[in-house]
Amino acid sequence: MSVSYILLIDFCGTVVFAISGAIAAMERKLDVFGIIVLAFVTAIGGGTIRDVLIGNTPVTWLRDPTSPILILLATFAAIVFRRTFNNLSRTLLIFDSLGLGLFTVTGIQKGLAINIHPALCIALGTITGCFGGVIRDLLLREIPVLFRKEFYASACIVGGVVYLSMAPFFSVAVAQTATILVVCILRLLAVKYNWRLPSVP
Amino acid sequence: MSVSYILLIDFCGTVVFAISGAIAAMERKLDVFGIIVLAFVTAIGGGTIRDVLIGNTPVTWLRDPTSPILILLATFAAIVFRRTFNNLSRTLLIFDSLGLGLFTVTGIQKGLAINIHPALCIALGTITGCFGGVIRDLLLREIPVLFRKEFYASACIVGGVVYLSMAPFFSVAVAQTATILVVCILRLLAVKYNWRLPSVP
Amino acid sequence: MSVSYILLIDFCGTVVFAISGAIAAMERKLDVFGIIVLAFVTAIGGGTIRDVLIGNTPVTWLRDPTSPILILLATFAAIVFRRTFNNLSRTLLIFDSLGLGLFTVTGIQKGLAINIHPALCIALGTITGCFGGVIRDLLLREIPVLFRKEFYASACIVGGVVYLSMAPFFSVAVAQTATILVVCILRLLAVKYNWRLPSVP
Repeated sequence: MSVSYILLIDFCGTVVFAISGAIAAMERKLDVFGIIVLAFVTAIGGGTIRDVLIGNTPVTWLRDPTSPILILLATFAAIVFRRTFNNLSRTLLIFDSLGLGLFTVTGIQKGLAINIHPALCIALGTITGCFGGVIRDLLLREIPVLFRKEFYASACIVGGVVYLSMAPFFSVAVAQTATILVVCILRLLAVKYNWRLPSVP
Repeated sequence: MSVSYILLIDFCGTVVFAISGAIAAMERKLDVFGIIVLAFVTAIGGGTIRDVLIGNTPVTWLRDPTSPILILLATFAAIVFRRTFNNLSRTLLIFDSLGLGLFTVTGIQKGLAINIHPALCIALGTITGCFGGVIRDLLLREIPVLFRKEFYASACIVGGVVYLSMAPFFSVAVAQTATILVVCILRLLAVKYNWRLPSVP
Repeated sequence: MSVSYILLIDFCGTVVFAISGAIAAMERKLDVFGIIVLAFVTAIGGGTIRDVLIGNTPVTWLRDPTSPILILLATFAAIVFRRTFNNLSRTLLIFDSLGLGLFTVTGIQKGLAINIHPALCIALGTITGCFGGVIRDLLLREIPVLFRKEFYASACIVGGVVYLSMAPFFSVAVAQTATILVVCILRLLAVKYNWRLPSVP
């Protein structure tokens, strides 16, 4: 049951990140193919880097066509329903934040499953959550989201600490759900209230 | 015989992409070392990402020095004969298109060899064909060729469909040769006639 | 004993590259988290790419938390003592050059250990030495250090030749120490006297 819940989280993350990539591409007026490429890169970039780092190859999306199919469907939906989002950049933010929380959890889980040190699993979760967006930004030649926005990777790290703190006391599914909510809400609050980390004077 | 034909295709792709990387570097007035680095990156970038994604490590060029030697020779030839190309950017286009077709085929072939789903092999062929050029563009801080030029990755995808459609009816070598020609010719025609994919209004 | 000397070299390289990444981030006025991210990327980028290319996965830093801990401590030290460096860019240069020499040696050594062709081990050492800095520059959207500065990767290649020439006649530790000094001194002299490789007319 826990396995199927983590799979569900992974598929949800794939769908919301694909939509966020497609929206970013439509904002930049890319052609249809560019929209599909950006949706793919954003949705599978973080998980692919994670799989490569831990040696889980062929990487997940090459072994199972579910994710690529979901990405194509999500991209298609994003194109069709683009007019219903009355504010593209706000919609992008919400999907991006949700994906961040979902993928942070799958990254931590994959690390724990192969006995990587818990503190390093937080790093792995952060990479899984953030690097789809970083590759998307590199390809669009924008400042990577990591440096541009306050509380992006930091939200993943806080979420990771929440996960590891809850794991001994609650069921896996409860700890995972709480972590997703913490990452997503922290990120949304940070953008709404313009929270910033201090820079060094 | 089929194995040696695919090896030949791989070596030809390496040589033409090395030349395309060297020409791009000479257009940008990089020094000798920069020319060699760009030739290497363009020639082995796509295949390296493919090998890493499917877990074929150490990656091919680390196990067999043939490709690095070919790249050095091709770079040397590109520098010596640079004056015979009376139009650098047209020469670059031809070599780049040829490499795209050659590497798309090697990527599909490597995927099929380890029983990856045929549709995903097309993605793998596209990555093998395109990502040498994408890394080259990222290092030169240009807009990645993927987004800049109409019918780049799209040509690889059409080529992949041709390959899989022909495979049941023709010998492997025939299907491979046809695919190389389709990708290369599609790309050249697209540039000549300025074909574009539609963007979303 | 040789194993522990190479480990010592690896840890020293990690520390000096972490400091160089942290200094680059402070020069760009990034926030505290951005400083930590850049220190990590610069310190583990080259070794991570090397590990992925040779299939040494999970990559080193995921199996042993020593490097991540050292990076955090080095970043903390760089922030605290930033005022004692009266010239940030000169300090950055010295740490960067030292890291280049140290990581070139660890890259060559890891390649030789799995019987990769010696000439390709030089390429592996060069990648290990250079790519932490290249990723750092890509994330900061600067011209990659590879193309910007004369005698960067070239110094690694000369160092690699020195290593392989000395290996049959001297102990491993002596060859390694000489290589580190050659790479670091070549790089510092090249910057001081503005050595450049010729470009193609």
